[in-house]
Amino acid sequence: MIETDILIIGAGPTGLFAVFEAGLLQLKCHIIDALPQPGGQLAELYPKKPIFDIPGYPEVLAGDLVNNLMEQIKQFQPGFTLAETAETIDKLDDGTFIVTTNKGTKHYAKAVAIAGGLGTFEPRKPALENISFYEEKGVEYFVKDPELFRDKDIVIAGGGDSALDWSIFLSNVAKTVTLVHRRNEFRGALDSVEKVQELKKLGKINLITPAEVVAIQGVDHVESITLDKNGEQETIKTDYFIPLFGLTPKLGAIANWGLEIEKNAIKVNNALDYQTNIDGIYAIGDVNIYPGKLKLILCGFHEATLMCQSVHNRINPGKKYVLKYTTVSGVDGFDGTRKEAEKAVVKSID
Amino acid sequence: MIETDILIIGAGPTGLFAVFEAGLLQLKCHIIDALPQPGGQLAELYPKKPIFDIPGYPEVLAGDLVNNLMEQIKQFQPGFTLAETAETIDKLDDGTFIVTTNKGTKHYAKAVAIAGGLGTFEPRKPALENISFYEEKGVEYFVKDPELFRDKDIVIAGGGDSALDWSIFLSNVAKTVTLVHRRNEFRGALDSVEKVQELKKLGKINLITPAEVVAIQGVDHVESITLDKNGEQETIKTDYFIPLFGLTPKLGAIANWGLEIEKNAIKVNNALDYQTNIDGIYAIGDVNIYPGKLKLILCGFHEATLMCQSVHNRINPGKKYVLKYTTVSGVDGFDGTRKEAEKAVVKSID
Repeated sequence: MIETDILIIGAGPTGLFAVFEAGLLQLKCHIIDALPQPGGQLAELYPKKPIFDIPGYPEVLAGDLVNNLMEQIKQFQPGFTLAETAETIDKLDDGTFIVTTNKGTKHYAKAVAIAGGLGTFEPRKPALENISFYEEKGVEYFVKDPELFRDKDIVIAGGGDSALDWSIFLSNVAKTVTLVHRRNEFRGALDSVEKVQELKKLGKINLITPAEVVAIQGVDHVESITLDKNGEQETIKTDYFIPLFGLTPKLGAIANWGLEIEKNAIKVNNALDYQTNIDGIYAIGDVNIYPGKLKLILCGFHEATLMCQSVHNRINPGKKYVLKYTTVSGVDGFDGTRKEAEKAVVKSID
Repeated sequence: MIETDILIIGAGPTGLFAVFEAGLLQLKCHIIDALPQPGGQLAELYPKKPIFDIPGYPEVLAGDLVNNLMEQIKQFQPGFTLAETAETIDKLDDGTFIVTTNKGTKHYAKAVAIAGGLGTFEPRKPALENISFYEEKGVEYFVKDPELFRDKDIVIAGGGDSALDWSIFLSNVAKTVTLVHRRNEFRGALDSVEKVQELKKLGKINLITPAEVVAIQGVDHVESITLDKNGEQETIKTDYFIPLFGLTPKLGAIANWGLEIEKNAIKVNNALDYQTNIDGIYAIGDVNIYPGKLKLILCGFHEATLMCQSVHNRINPGKKYVLKYTTVSGVDGFDGTRKEAEKAVVKSID
């Protein structure tokens, strides 16, 4: 069983920054996220887009903000359970928690902070009768590990950035890449569209449009898919079928944890510490709601910080806490590193 | 009279960022600060020190954070009344305000946000009987404009970073620089101490230690000062006397505005919008207090943002507000500039 002080559900910017603030208070964090990498929406949906309202950044690419946050927290060595979703929570008699994922991974924690953003990003699945049978048997809705596809035949379906970008990337990994889209037009960054055009001309991407995948075949793994192209059907051999039709956020299993929910978000006590109606469970960032709530990253940072203070008081009842400024006191990492300002010297001049 | 939507008192990071959030809501801001430049403590007290807890910055020098915030807000063209302190406030019948500074500058605003940090930084003054007579007549507690000292004889007193750094800087501006300190030891950044040592050897700084300034002379302007050096007195001619003995934060005149004060900070409604007990006056950043308050810059950013939303509702009652994300909608500056993410293209591949 994984053990930690604060179990954070959601590896978006709010969840990541919570690791830093917890670390300053000597609290360890572990993060669960449904996506295969940290960063939430910023990493999965718009890594190359600029954000203009992060304080102190006139402009920062979403992917860079995630990288900077990962760099900021690495000294506090957070644990990650990725590509799994939190399913059940059990509150023990002493007020601690066990959270179990859809894959059965168990996490023991003294407090739980839900930083779930708009919810778990669930893939939009094509309406194919037997698709669930082939999940993890050749059907993949995310590219978790590109190496899975090395020297394989793959079919990607979709017409947006994900389909374009993964087709480009995997054209150097897979044996063959077939990109199927129901229109001739793709919607994405100009350079991605142009790159796919170029790779098609070089014969590195096999482009089939307008077409739709209408059936999957295979005994105990995907072996081929059938395409409908203007009424004509064609079956092509493939090892993998990767439909990239976008993601829909769902609050998911957390909705059944007994938390007060309003407008698909979790109600919290914003007058104090962003705690939910269940003692020891907090909700921070876009997943929570309170009077005047704004779903902004910078608000999540503040909420994460006050949550960590509250957990610290919960774990160390009655212990007086004195805020230390990082500029004055430096930062001691759990990995033995120390960051600090250059000290002033006291020196005579003669 | 200066007219604005939100009058911000305090040009520290919280006050500066408020300009950005207000700008997104098409609200104009004007800032009053007692210091001669924006940035508050960060610019005045520790511009070269790193801060480690700004979200998304593993490390940022305080001065750089100020510069980045100034860059972030410049498109919203904030006005500044610098080197003046807010003295009196008058609430008009329609709920708007007139704020007057110690120099008599009047500001008309629809709402007032106090972002005063730990208070107005007032200089520690040497205990010299007639010093107040010479203020603005040769005695300066801040270097507001170095050009004032060009080709003049100046005496700087103090043993910290300010005294060291200004002695170095002004040694290239003034005719003569005399640095007086009551000890032989200086306390500051190593390179500053070493630079002063070097300039002394080159004869560009006249160093007198251990010594204290005990008297000022002059008819209607400083003409000379008297030093006590181990009991021996010496009078030296000078045009300016600049005692740099540090700053003490004082809540100042704001303490008499009828605001609820607790522990030298202003009580606010943290459950909603950081408004004070006076409708239309807000307090954000280190200057406010509420249950669980942490005096952190990142908390000030959040408080500034919710304050701006509240002011927007106040100025536009009943108007429904829909949050727009900068990544999606871009940012339109008051100066006609526009920042936006590169648009996706819809393009066929053939």
